[in-house]
Amino acid sequence: MVNLAVIYYSSTGTNYQLAKWAEEAGKEAGADVRVVKVPELAPEAAIASNPGWKAHVEETKDVPEATSDDIEWADAIIFSVPTRFGNLASQMKQYLDMQGGLWATGKTVNKVVSAMSSAQNPHGGQEATILALYTSMMHWGAIIVPPGYTDQLLFAAGGNPYGTSVTQGQDGKMVEDVQAAVKHQAKRTIEIAKKVANK
Amino acid sequence: MVNLAVIYYSSTGTNYQLAKWAEEAGKEAGADVRVVKVPELAPEAAIASNPGWKAHVEETKDVPEATSDDIEWADAIIFSVPTRFGNLASQMKQYLDMQGGLWATGKTVNKVVSAMSSAQNPHGGQEATILALYTSMMHWGAIIVPPGYTDQLLFAAGGNPYGTSVTQGQDGKMVEDVQAAVKHQAKRTIEIAKKVANK
Amino acid sequence: MVNLAVIYYSSTGTNYQLAKWAEEAGKEAGADVRVVKVPELAPEAAIASNPGWKAHVEETKDVPEATSDDIEWADAIIFSVPTRFGNLASQMKQYLDMQGGLWATGKTVNKVVSAMSSAQNPHGGQEATILALYTSMMHWGAIIVPPGYTDQLLFAAGGNPYGTSVTQGQDGKMVEDVQAAVKHQAKRTIEIAKKVANK
Amino acid sequence: MVNLAVIYYSSTGTNYQLAKWAEEAGKEAGADVRVVKVPELAPEAAIASNPGWKAHVEETKDVPEATSDDIEWADAIIFSVPTRFGNLASQMKQYLDMQGGLWATGKTVNKVVSAMSSAQNPHGGQEATILALYTSMMHWGAIIVPPGYTDQLLFAAGGNPYGTSVTQGQDGKMVEDVQAAVKHQAKRTIEIAKKVANK
Repeated sequence: MVNLAVIYYSSTGTNYQLAKWAEEAGKEAGADVRVVKVPELAPEAAIASNPGWKAHVEETKDVPEATSDDIEWADAIIFSVPTRFGNLASQMKQYLDMQGGLWATGKTVNKVVSAMSSAQNPHGGQEATILALYTSMMHWGAIIVPPGYTDQLLFAAGGNPYGTSVTQGQDGKMVEDVQAAVKHQAKRTIEIAKKVANK
Repeated sequence: MVNLAVIYYSSTGTNYQLAKWAEEAGKEAGADVRVVKVPELAPEAAIASNPGWKAHVEETKDVPEATSDDIEWADAIIFSVPTRFGNLASQMKQYLDMQGGLWATGKTVNKVVSAMSSAQNPHGGQEATILALYTSMMHWGAIIVPPGYTDQLLFAAGGNPYGTSVTQGQDGKMVEDVQAAVKHQAKRTIEIAKKVANK
Repeated sequence: MVNLAVIYYSSTGTNYQLAKWAEEAGKEAGADVRVVKVPELAPEAAIASNPGWKAHVEETKDVPEATSDDIEWADAIIFSVPTRFGNLASQMKQYLDMQGGLWATGKTVNKVVSAMSSAQNPHGGQEATILALYTSMMHWGAIIVPPGYTDQLLFAAGGNPYGTSVTQGQDGKMVEDVQAAVKHQAKRTIEIAKKVANK
Repeated sequence: MVNLAVIYYSSTGTNYQLAKWAEEAGKEAGADVRVVKVPELAPEAAIASNPGWKAHVEETKDVPEATSDDIEWADAIIFSVPTRFGNLASQMKQYLDMQGGLWATGKTVNKVVSAMSSAQNPHGGQEATILALYTSMMHWGAIIVPPGYTDQLLFAAGGNPYGTSVTQGQDGKMVEDVQAAVKHQAKRTIEIAKKVANK
C-alpha cells in the first residue's frame, strides 16, 4: 500500500479543497493518505482582519500540522500551495527549509512528488510557483511526476502540464472546474510511486 | 526618439498580431519602430502541410528578417514568441544564439527588454516561456521591464505580470482580448527606455 | 541622490558581508544607503544550537529590521539572500509576502532591483535562487538590472550573470573573491536607478 | 533490459564526452544504450571558422542523428546540452520542438528523464539550462529524475542537484572532474527507469 502525504497551505480554503480532492482520489486508488497543513506564520491580527481566513483557520483546526515524519513516512507527496508573487507562500517555504535535518540523512531521496497551485489571476504565477517547488524537490533527490498532458480531461482544467492550478475569483470561489484534474494527478502520482517503491 | 525593435516569431499569426499592436503603441508613443521576424527553421514541407502556417508565411513575406543590427540599433526591444513545450520556439532561440558576436562586443548591454507569448492552453507555458526569455536577456546585460500589475487593464487580459500572454484557441483565434495590455506594455517599455537611453 | 535599500537575510554572515560591500559601493557612488535585515523566523533553540549563527545574530543585533517603508523609500533595492533548496530562504520570502499591502497601492512599481546569493556548493542553487527573486519582482512591477557580463571582473567572480553569487565553504568562509563583483553590481544598479528616478 | 537514449548536442566535444560517460555507465548497468546527436543548425561557414568545432564535427560524423524513434524506443533518456545564454542550445530546442507529432500520440509519456549541461563560466547558466530542459519534459508527461545529493561524490563534482554540469575552460578542457558524477547520474536514471518500465 502506497503512503501518500498531501501537504498543503491554505489561507481561505482553495488549496485545502485541492488537497481534499487529492485525498479522495488517493483513497480510491488504495493508498494510505495523510492530509497535513504546514504551520501558519502570519500573526493572529492579520488572520483576524480577514473573515474568510479566520473562518478557514477555525474550520481546519483539527487538521494535523505537517512534520518531518510525514515526509519520511510517505512514498508519494502531493503539495498544494497558493502563489505569493510567483513563488511558494512563505509558510510552505518555511516548512521545506526546516527539513534540513531530514535531508542530511538522505530520507528525502526517491520520494515521488507532484504539486498543485492557485492564484488570483489566470496567469498569476501558477506555473512559476509549481516550477519553484519542483526545483526544491530536485535538491531533495525526489522523483518528479507532473501531469503533463496525460489525459484529455486536463485540457478542460486549463492545461497546466506542471500540475493542476486554479484561479481563485474575487468572491473566493474557483473559476475553473479542476476536480477531475486533481484526481487524475493524484492517481498518476500514486501509480508511479507504487512502481518506484515496489509496493 | 527611442528606437524600438519588435522581434517576433509567428507560425500562424498570433504573435505577429501582438507585434503589430506593439508597433502601433510604439508609434503613438513617438518611438521609431522596426517590426522584424526571426528566420524560419522549419522545412518547406512542414509549412506546406499546414494551410494556416502557409498563408501566414505568404502574408508576411515582406516583413524584414531580424539581424544583429536591429538589436544594436534598438534602445528598447519587445520580443513576441509562442511557447513550444514551455520554452521559446526554437526559431527565436536560434536567433538569440546567433548574437554571440554582438554580445562579445558589449552591444547588448542596457537594452530595455520586455516580452510577450502565446500558447494553446490557458496554462500552457506562457509564464515559463517569458521567464526563459528574460533569463537569456540577463546574460545580455539587458534591463528587464515586465508589465507587473502596473495598470488595472492588465487584470482583464489575464494578469500575466511577466508579459502579455494569450491563449490561441483551436480555431486559431485569440481567446482573451489583450490588445490594450500589449499597448500598455509597449508604452511602459518605451517610457523606461527613454530614461535609460537619455532620449 | 539615489536611495538604495540593501535588504538581506544572513544566518552566519555571508550575505551580511555581501550587503556591506554593496553599502560601501553605494556610498562611494553617492547614494543614500540603508542596510536592513529581514526578520528571523527560526526558533531561538535552532539559533542557539549553531555557534556561528548565534554569534552572527549577536553581531548584527543593531542592524534595523526591514519594513515596508524601506521599499517605499528606495529608488533601488539590492537583495542578498542565501539559497535554501534552490529558492529564497523562507525568512526573505516571508518578508516579501508581507508587502501585499504596499503592492496593492502601487508603491512597488519601478523600483530598480538587483540580487545576490550564496550556497554551500558551487552549483547549489545560486542561479535558481536569484531567478526566483526576480520572478517575484516582476509581480511588483520592478525594473530588473542583473549584472550580465558588463565588466571583465565578473568572470573572475564566477560569471553569474543574474547576480553576484558565492560559495560558502565548510569552514564558513567564502570560496570565491567576489568583493569587486558586488561593488560593480551595486554601482550599476545605482546608475540605472538614477536614470529611472530622474535623480 | 532498459533502453537508454543519450541525446546530446556538442560543438567542440564537452557534451559528447559527458554523453560517452553516460553510455559507459549505462552499459555497465546492463542497459541497451543509443548515443545520438541532434542535428546541427549552424551554417557550414560558422563551423569552418572554428577549428575545434570543425574537428569535432569530423570526429563524430558517424554518430547517428537523433530521431523521434529514439524517444519512442527509450525507457530512459539522458540529455546533454551546452548552455547558450542560460537556456538550451537552439539545436537541442529545435529537436525537441520537432517531436510535436510524437507528443500528440502520447508516446513521450512516462519516459524517465535526466539532464546534464556545460558552460564557459562556473555560474554561466548551468542550473537555468537544465531546469529549462525539465520544464519541457513536464509538457511531455515525462518522469524527472535529477541526481539531487544522492551520493557523496556529487559534492566533489560541484554539487549541481539538477544534473551534472561542468565548466569548459578557455582551453576547451573541463575544469571540474565530473566523470564519476555522470556515471552516478546515469545509473540512478536507469535504476528508476527499470522500476517505472517494469523491466
